[in-house]
Amino acid sequence: MSRVLVTGGSGFLGAPLVERLAAGGHEVHAVSSRAAPDARGPALWHRANLLSPEAADSVVDRVRPTHLVHLAWITTPGIYWTSLDNLAWVEASLRLARAFLERGGQRFLAAGSCAEYAWNGGALSEDSTPLRPQSLYGAAKGSLRTLVEAAAAETETEVAWARLFFTYGPGEHPDRLVPTVARSVLAGDTARCTEGVQLRDYLFVDDAVAAMAALLDSRVTGPVNVGSGAPVPVRELAQAVAREAGRPDLLKLGALPTPPHEPDEITADVRRLRKEVGVAPSITIHDGVRRTVEWWRAQSGAAPAR
Amino acid sequence: MSRVLVTGGSGFLGAPLVERLAAGGHEVHAVSSRAAPDARGPALWHRANLLSPEAADSVVDRVRPTHLVHLAWITTPGIYWTSLDNLAWVEASLRLARAFLERGGQRFLAAGSCAEYAWNGGALSEDSTPLRPQSLYGAAKGSLRTLVEAAAAETETEVAWARLFFTYGPGEHPDRLVPTVARSVLAGDTARCTEGVQLRDYLFVDDAVAAMAALLDSRVTGPVNVGSGAPVPVRELAQAVAREAGRPDLLKLGALPTPPHEPDEITADVRRLRKEVGVAPSITIHDGVRRTVEWWRAQSGAAPAR
Repeated sequence: MSRVLVTGGSGFLGAPLVERLAAGGHEVHAVSSRAAPDARGPALWHRANLLSPEAADSVVDRVRPTHLVHLAWITTPGIYWTSLDNLAWVEASLRLARAFLERGGQRFLAAGSCAEYAWNGGALSEDSTPLRPQSLYGAAKGSLRTLVEAAAAETETEVAWARLFFTYGPGEHPDRLVPTVARSVLAGDTARCTEGVQLRDYLFVDDAVAAMAALLDSRVTGPVNVGSGAPVPVRELAQAVAREAGRPDLLKLGALPTPPHEPDEITADVRRLRKEVGVAPSITIHDGVRRTVEWWRAQSGAAPAR
Repeated sequence: MSRVLVTGGSGFLGAPLVERLAAGGHEVHAVSSRAAPDARGPALWHRANLLSPEAADSVVDRVRPTHLVHLAWITTPGIYWTSLDNLAWVEASLRLARAFLERGGQRFLAAGSCAEYAWNGGALSEDSTPLRPQSLYGAAKGSLRTLVEAAAAETETEVAWARLFFTYGPGEHPDRLVPTVARSVLAGDTARCTEGVQLRDYLFVDDAVAAMAALLDSRVTGPVNVGSGAPVPVRELAQAVAREAGRPDLLKLGALPTPPHEPDEITADVRRLRKEVGVAPSITIHDGVRRTVEWWRAQSGAAPAR
């Protein structure tokens, strides 16, 4: 039986992944710097701040995981691309990896990013696209992969690296695109956006979680893109959100200037994910947006949006 | 005036570099995990183990360096290529880099390695040779450069990265090639070596130190090879050592098998070092070996070799 330790277990991806892994028969331990979301839930919770130097050793010693899923990172919108905290997260991740490898851990899965690639248009491929990150965040994720893979080769530990593209759905940070539009128009406010003609690879959170779980259960190693393979113009996603919320009139495309250096297209080549891991998205953009807007509607009913 | 903090300040490269920088007019602070080699010397010494989490912040806070020269790393022969301690040194280096960048540090110089390159024969070039390390050590040095450069871009700090090739001279670890041969034959023992036909780029330590000091004082950024550009077969170096020690008869080339995957040639392309930094080696292999053997002879007179 596998004993899985999930970091970032109360996060956007972590919370549903913890549930799914537990339902799939894993003994799941979750680390969160916040209090356990539900002590009666399917996981055993460990409260720890992985940025403090002794936390990784302590939690890995306690749990002795056979599998490690490392999701925790700085993700604050508008900050995480350039923050020096990215270095602190590399440090924390290396402490965690060392603790895991030194105690005979078998399989390590981490959340990488499409930001590890050169964004040079067309579908980004694990095999052929150059790794030339244009941000500190992308450099941090990419360097961490190099380091963990090189270290794991010494201990014969498997490393799989999920390069996540644009994941959306219930529970996403309120300041990201889909939540911003949903919250604004549900509150009857104008949602000011850029022109939004750039193509992005969006994947509904349940599909991303299914891909991560399948990747963990497989023997596939190395980088694997986790995306839909079917990019949409950002404006179409925003329009779908506003329409689903019943207020397409409140969406103001082109009200904000497009940032410089915004690449025209960021699309995942998903052949490895489909052929080797054996998963494909099952939720359409239409259904994904509907479920997301419903979730935000319920939130705004329960408590005012921030 | 520049205030330079040197890590690994009591090491093979660090000790002479500290002296040279002080002679060059810098206010030099040196970190060592050992006791200060000479409290009356030209540097101000700070005893600290950079692997302990709070050490970097503490020493950078105390010194407030404008320039940082980071040499400290695991260097134990036979161990350092594959040890998981390489991850611990990446962590320590990132803590140091963060502390330096957050406090407005101006120029960061670190000891990189020829092990960052793919060893594909011919002269290894900063511009054109792929970065494909074949060891955890090489991956660690290479990833650290990527991370520090990406972080320093956010704070407009300069980063220069000295890729050291094969440095030899007085004070080298006794278990490395030149010291092993020198100590054996000086003691009247046989020195058993491999065939030694592979070409390596050797540089005498004073020339390496001169190159590092010039690189620190320049405005050159990015990777710079620090080597001679003139490779020799390893057997010739061993022969020179045995001859200089007066016992060429004790050198047994071919007595040990050549390790598998030993590359035929590791040579530095030194055009950047010469043209942009403006330094070239001044000490011939003959003179370098002579001075090194003299130093070991003096050591063996003072105390028996280990």
